[in-house]
This record gives sequence, C-alpha cells and structure tokens, in this order.
Amino acid sequence: MARFMDIHDGFVGVTKEQLAEAHDADLAIESEEGVHFERAWLDPESGKVFCLSSGPSREAVLRIHERAGHPADEIHELSIEV
Amino acid sequence: MARFMDIHDGFVGVTKEQLAEAHDADLAIESEEGVHFERAWLDPESGKVFCLSSGPSREAVLRIHERAGHPADEIHELSIEV
Repeated sequence: MARFMDIHDGFVGVTKEQLAEAHDADLAIESEEGVHFERAWLDPESGKVFCLSSGPSREAVLRIHERAGHPADEIHELSIEV
Repeated sequence: MARFMDIHDGFVGVTKEQLAEAHDADLAIESEEGVHFERAWLDPESGKVFCLSSGPSREAVLRIHERAGHPADEIHELSIEV
C-alpha cells in the first residue's frame, strides 16, 4: 500500500456539506479498488481540495475519483513522511 | 487558530533524513509565531512537499518556513475538512 495526495481545482465557494457529499461518493466505492480516502481539506477561496489516501496505485485512486464524478487534477505518491 | 497546507517545489530526490532535517528546522522556531507543523509529506519524484500546519495566519506560517531556509511556493487555508 502506498499513500497519495491528490488535488482538485475549481471548488471555489463549496460548502462543508457539498465536500462531505463528494467525499462520501468516494467512500461508497473505494473498496472496489482497495483504496481508502483518509481525509479531504478544502480552501474555498482558492478552490483547491487536497485528498490524502492510501491504495495500491495512483491509477486506482484516480479511477475512484473519476467514477465518483470528480476527477483529480494532480496526484503525488507520498513515499516519504515526517 | 486556522489550518494550512503549504507546498514546496524542487525537492526531487530528497531523502527522508533531509526532509526530517528541514522539518526539524521549522519545529525549532515555530513557537515564536504560534505555528505548529503537524506533518510533511514528500513525493521525491515530482519534488513536491506538502506541509500541514496550524497557526494564527498564513503569513506566520510562511515566515517560519522562510526563516528556516525553505520558503513555501504556495499556501492554502483549509477552512473546511472532512
């Protein structure tokens, strides 16, 4: 299992309820790819969402986000953490 | 207290030891600005570092990183979290 940070753009003005709804859509199907979305943080001014996840590959994480209706704009494998 | 994610570019090939050293340089002075750096994640292939912190303002976080010798390229206030 690897850990990933992916980033979504364009979430300007999105509310906590809307972010929770998007996150729940990921959680509902994540096990089909062996992925787990641990946390999502939003800056509603810049519209950036940061999702911290674990899973077997970056492709698996990206597939869940795509199927849930919100493809990521960027993804990074976090092989080092302090 | 607010929560922030800042991003550094250009850390391609950096090791865990080097990241820990940079993080320790932040921890050594963070209290002077009322900031706390909770976690730092690195993708050594893309060279991106993501730092999760809490503090009184984005300027306070940026000042600690600058004084520690590694100014951030981007910072986002994470007012929403799920």
